[in-house]
Amino acid sequence: MEGKMKVAVMNGIGKMGFIEREIPKVADNEVLVKLEYVGICGSDLHYYETGRIGDYIVKPPFVLGHEPGGTVVEIGKNVTNLNVGDKVALEPGKTCGHCEFCKTGQYNLCPDVVFFATPPVDGVFQEYVAHEADLCFKLPDNVSTLEGALIEPLAVGFHAANQGGAHAGQSAVIMGAGCIGLVTLLALKAMGLTEIYVVDIMPNRLEKAKELGAAAVINGKEKDVVKEVMELTGGTGCDLVFETTGAEIIAQQAVFISKKGASIVFIGYSNSGSVNLPLSLAMDKELTFKTVFRYRHIYPMAIQAVASGKVNLKGIITHVFDLDDVQNAMDSSIRNKTEIVKAVIKIEK
Amino acid sequence: MEGKMKVAVMNGIGKMGFIEREIPKVADNEVLVKLEYVGICGSDLHYYETGRIGDYIVKPPFVLGHEPGGTVVEIGKNVTNLNVGDKVALEPGKTCGHCEFCKTGQYNLCPDVVFFATPPVDGVFQEYVAHEADLCFKLPDNVSTLEGALIEPLAVGFHAANQGGAHAGQSAVIMGAGCIGLVTLLALKAMGLTEIYVVDIMPNRLEKAKELGAAAVINGKEKDVVKEVMELTGGTGCDLVFETTGAEIIAQQAVFISKKGASIVFIGYSNSGSVNLPLSLAMDKELTFKTVFRYRHIYPMAIQAVASGKVNLKGIITHVFDLDDVQNAMDSSIRNKTEIVKAVIKIEK
Amino acid sequence: MEGKMKVAVMNGIGKMGFIEREIPKVADNEVLVKLEYVGICGSDLHYYETGRIGDYIVKPPFVLGHEPGGTVVEIGKNVTNLNVGDKVALEPGKTCGHCEFCKTGQYNLCPDVVFFATPPVDGVFQEYVAHEADLCFKLPDNVSTLEGALIEPLAVGFHAANQGGAHAGQSAVIMGAGCIGLVTLLALKAMGLTEIYVVDIMPNRLEKAKELGAAAVINGKEKDVVKEVMELTGGTGCDLVFETTGAEIIAQQAVFISKKGASIVFIGYSNSGSVNLPLSLAMDKELTFKTVFRYRHIYPMAIQAVASGKVNLKGIITHVFDLDDVQNAMDSSIRNKTEIVKAVIKIEK
Amino acid sequence: MEGKMKVAVMNGIGKMGFIEREIPKVADNEVLVKLEYVGICGSDLHYYETGRIGDYIVKPPFVLGHEPGGTVVEIGKNVTNLNVGDKVALEPGKTCGHCEFCKTGQYNLCPDVVFFATPPVDGVFQEYVAHEADLCFKLPDNVSTLEGALIEPLAVGFHAANQGGAHAGQSAVIMGAGCIGLVTLLALKAMGLTEIYVVDIMPNRLEKAKELGAAAVINGKEKDVVKEVMELTGGTGCDLVFETTGAEIIAQQAVFISKKGASIVFIGYSNSGSVNLPLSLAMDKELTFKTVFRYRHIYPMAIQAVASGKVNLKGIITHVFDLDDVQNAMDSSIRNKTEIVKAVIKIEK
Repeated sequence: MEGKMKVAVMNGIGKMGFIEREIPKVADNEVLVKLEYVGICGSDLHYYETGRIGDYIVKPPFVLGHEPGGTVVEIGKNVTNLNVGDKVALEPGKTCGHCEFCKTGQYNLCPDVVFFATPPVDGVFQEYVAHEADLCFKLPDNVSTLEGALIEPLAVGFHAANQGGAHAGQSAVIMGAGCIGLVTLLALKAMGLTEIYVVDIMPNRLEKAKELGAAAVINGKEKDVVKEVMELTGGTGCDLVFETTGAEIIAQQAVFISKKGASIVFIGYSNSGSVNLPLSLAMDKELTFKTVFRYRHIYPMAIQAVASGKVNLKGIITHVFDLDDVQNAMDSSIRNKTEIVKAVIKIEK
Repeated sequence: MEGKMKVAVMNGIGKMGFIEREIPKVADNEVLVKLEYVGICGSDLHYYETGRIGDYIVKPPFVLGHEPGGTVVEIGKNVTNLNVGDKVALEPGKTCGHCEFCKTGQYNLCPDVVFFATPPVDGVFQEYVAHEADLCFKLPDNVSTLEGALIEPLAVGFHAANQGGAHAGQSAVIMGAGCIGLVTLLALKAMGLTEIYVVDIMPNRLEKAKELGAAAVINGKEKDVVKEVMELTGGTGCDLVFETTGAEIIAQQAVFISKKGASIVFIGYSNSGSVNLPLSLAMDKELTFKTVFRYRHIYPMAIQAVASGKVNLKGIITHVFDLDDVQNAMDSSIRNKTEIVKAVIKIEK
Repeated sequence: MEGKMKVAVMNGIGKMGFIEREIPKVADNEVLVKLEYVGICGSDLHYYETGRIGDYIVKPPFVLGHEPGGTVVEIGKNVTNLNVGDKVALEPGKTCGHCEFCKTGQYNLCPDVVFFATPPVDGVFQEYVAHEADLCFKLPDNVSTLEGALIEPLAVGFHAANQGGAHAGQSAVIMGAGCIGLVTLLALKAMGLTEIYVVDIMPNRLEKAKELGAAAVINGKEKDVVKEVMELTGGTGCDLVFETTGAEIIAQQAVFISKKGASIVFIGYSNSGSVNLPLSLAMDKELTFKTVFRYRHIYPMAIQAVASGKVNLKGIITHVFDLDDVQNAMDSSIRNKTEIVKAVIKIEK
Repeated sequence: MEGKMKVAVMNGIGKMGFIEREIPKVADNEVLVKLEYVGICGSDLHYYETGRIGDYIVKPPFVLGHEPGGTVVEIGKNVTNLNVGDKVALEPGKTCGHCEFCKTGQYNLCPDVVFFATPPVDGVFQEYVAHEADLCFKLPDNVSTLEGALIEPLAVGFHAANQGGAHAGQSAVIMGAGCIGLVTLLALKAMGLTEIYVVDIMPNRLEKAKELGAAAVINGKEKDVVKEVMELTGGTGCDLVFETTGAEIIAQQAVFISKKGASIVFIGYSNSGSVNLPLSLAMDKELTFKTVFRYRHIYPMAIQAVASGKVNLKGIITHVFDLDDVQNAMDSSIRNKTEIVKAVIKIEK
């Protein structure tokens, strides 16, 4: 497809703007997707606020956004799995396919991954993107491209659940009811867990967690979290903890509320990069600590879970902004964290 | 508790009767349970019709029945997990606790197991039973003792699902929509699978499977099962097959409808004991065959699944007979297999 | 590299010959390997004798051989992991890297695999081959290219051991002491198993198994295999059985000699493609049947096992033939199965 | 057996003494063992030096010692697996057999465990002990009771290896070459790993590690551990780390030397109970942290590993003291940690 497209760019810390670029050409194994919705992720906000995450440093103009949903408008000549008109969710990371990690199925650890909105690779707050066809997953009729955009964060929730070895019959506590806490809740529910408790300190987020199916919620400002979890689990502690906050004190609580033999899954990054953990207690309980880096092999199952009605993905969206309003979208998401749980940019006019 | 109780006994092939026995005394680690419902299992019918299963030979008078639900009426002096008045589901096998299998958690393979209604151990078509407290699992308020009786077959379904490594996102085909096929369906649904197909040749059973949540059903008399499954799975075959019929031709179909890398779980015993399998095809697909012998570690999760509403256990019951009507219950269950999917004996007056 | 090379071809059933071809050009991600040794596999012999395996039909002239070891003589411009002069073992299957199986690490099940000596893809009974650099594994100084050629069958042994979940402390029985039985023995030993028993009917093969470290061998012609295994395992049966013969009666024995909860790994194809198995007994013991299709992720560990001295790979070679003598090599391997356990073609002059 | 026996007791911090007690009577499921060797464990020394470990507080007179080997001199009337005269290694923890942890095979987490030398339960620095027959494991002819005594610490090494999912082909680093570091080395070698590196700061311990089969050793005082491991592993880091020192800085190094996707197994307790870990880096690498609490299901495999010659258990013993010399044995073990890697008390005269 010939022509120009609008691209929202980060021009510096706290400064969004727009440029025009050529609509990308599709390679033989790619499709061209007209983007309709792109979610705003915590990492987008972090780049926007600070200009970097660890060693990844933004060099403006830089395109943010890696949670895209859209419609296929052109297909490369070797593409067989998709057709023009198909709605798709895009998995944002292209991997090499032949390193040790790719070969063993741990492609999320591929050292040569090219991932949307991870400097120096641009993201997709823009009208079109050309992407490998096997990273574009067709959405069934009853799944919208708005939901498609949220398959990406949902994938983190499912991968976290997988890392914890989650299965029906277990009790789980989710520390933090932000977007990642909520998608973890949705994933656990879809995998058959029913005894899921959510801890946060913001009442509106706890309310959201309840709406989305938490068996109980605990306000960590008002209640003794350890005591509450012990009561809810009949004194044994829980089988699984998902730590999404990055706060040291919460990570420590995770050890205290765990049952012997339990697993704690760390998803939230701390500001300092380090956390002091009560390791002796963890050893007495023979706990396992798992960590989460993005996800692997999740898109098809996540889409199926949404299509079947097991996962109410729209339920986590609190705000939708137009692409033209992207500066406000970013600023509001930062200033108003109590109200905005999950914001999405609407690309399509 | 002092007194006598009514016991239904098998007096010979096809002959039920009644005797009176002392109400059993509870040992220190046991509870006395007033039984309310006991399911009729295929193995009960097999003993009743033929007098044996393999090397297990009935010596009359013999008590059938190993799917009990009831209420605790007395507790042994060391019992701490239960109180008088608690509704319970009873796991029917007492194991030694110190053999290699027990120690490694595979207690269902304990060679010294004592299992209800497995000669020479009597079952529980009777008014009371004394049973180890840690094999009696408390039912929450919203689970009835009728459902409690059916936790036993449901446990087979969950164990089969576990043996297959079932998890959300997989496609599964269940061969046979009898009681075991249906509890497998319920278990898979509770574990988050949505793409579950059920094959049978009796329309009423397929209807039942649909009611209980099968995504599609296939009448093996009318349709080409392999072709149908291939179409339903987009040509790849399914991730999991559960073979509950014991029929050789069905076991063979299981291999044909399996995706590469899939698992087939064998639950149904064949009459001859042997089955001819297309092993070369299984090797080309690198299939795994798993088998099921009873279950382990399932009761708590199965009860929770029923309590949470994930499993509609009442939905599989088609007939309830009084204890006094046990001869008719047995005879009808054998004669009328098309109509009676699952019958239960009501013990309580 | 410019020039011609000698290629041994199968001109028809039982007819080998030679042709000259251009030395292949290396693509950017490939290396050119001067081949030094190529093993003769049972599948090569099967194609040679019958012209086909299943749906794979030889169309002459066809090049057999898929167990190559050699030395890198040229590297493509994107190759970084290898240098000219490196000795290498070549993994013979190129896979697509982006199908569901490749992505999940099960690349041996890739439907688009291109595998040496599997019609219509030519093998490597020839002087040179250009192959993907990431499928060419560097051999340390103390591993020869003769051993390098045998990494391929050894990989089958390791994959079989992995499929069985083999680990130190288990007892294992290997049915059949041909090449695949012996490499399975070597793999199990390298993984720490010590209680490994080998069954065959040819005394020289049993002798070989003993030499290579079997704890005991059983001549199935002279002894009651089931009784012997029961005695050797203290009456419990063994934890693992590896069936390499493809004979129905042996497959049945595998079930009888298995301990409760054991795994049987099927590696040998039967002539008929079907096997009658005592499935009810397998269910009573809750056995698992695993199958083996080639291998995945094995080359680095297999090479390390040889380099460390854990695996005596040369020990399985009984005959080495020159490339010019390939017709005799093939014919002898077929006629003289009792004596030739494993033959290798020496390519290099 | 009637009579009195000598018992070494801890009479207070740093004070050993002797008392006489009745030789214990055997219960029906027990055997009476004449003890021959009992190892001195780090926990024995800790109780001796400080009077407590966490909430476990010594109340004198208290019997230390939980690593026993001896000979059966009497058997209870229900015992079938042992005979008088059998040499045995004793697993020191009796578990309940019916809690959730016991039933699922995680008996090391049984809350009702009764474990030798863990207050208030006495240990076995004494002449006889009556112990459950299924916790007494028969030693083959070629395994001595001195080795039998060391099966206990070896079991910790094997369990650590199991917790890490160790298997042939992996690279492993062991932090600390004390007794637990060395038994972990022995276990890993027995499980087929060859690329095992050991880090310590005491030359004699590193020498020992080399003797016992470490591929390389690193003196952490003289070398940059992270740099060394990176070089040894070709820049990727190692697949497994075993942290046995309890030192925070070493625990942090463990994260730095780990490969993406690797597992770190924590075995050594820190003094403070807490450790500051670089969790963000662990998340970027998607590491798993496992912990070790005693062991489960190890004795039979550990004994077999010793019997087969795979494990040179005698190699870790540096000192043997007589029972009469127990005060000196304890004092020397504390004062002279550089020289005494592993001491054993010889009970028998």
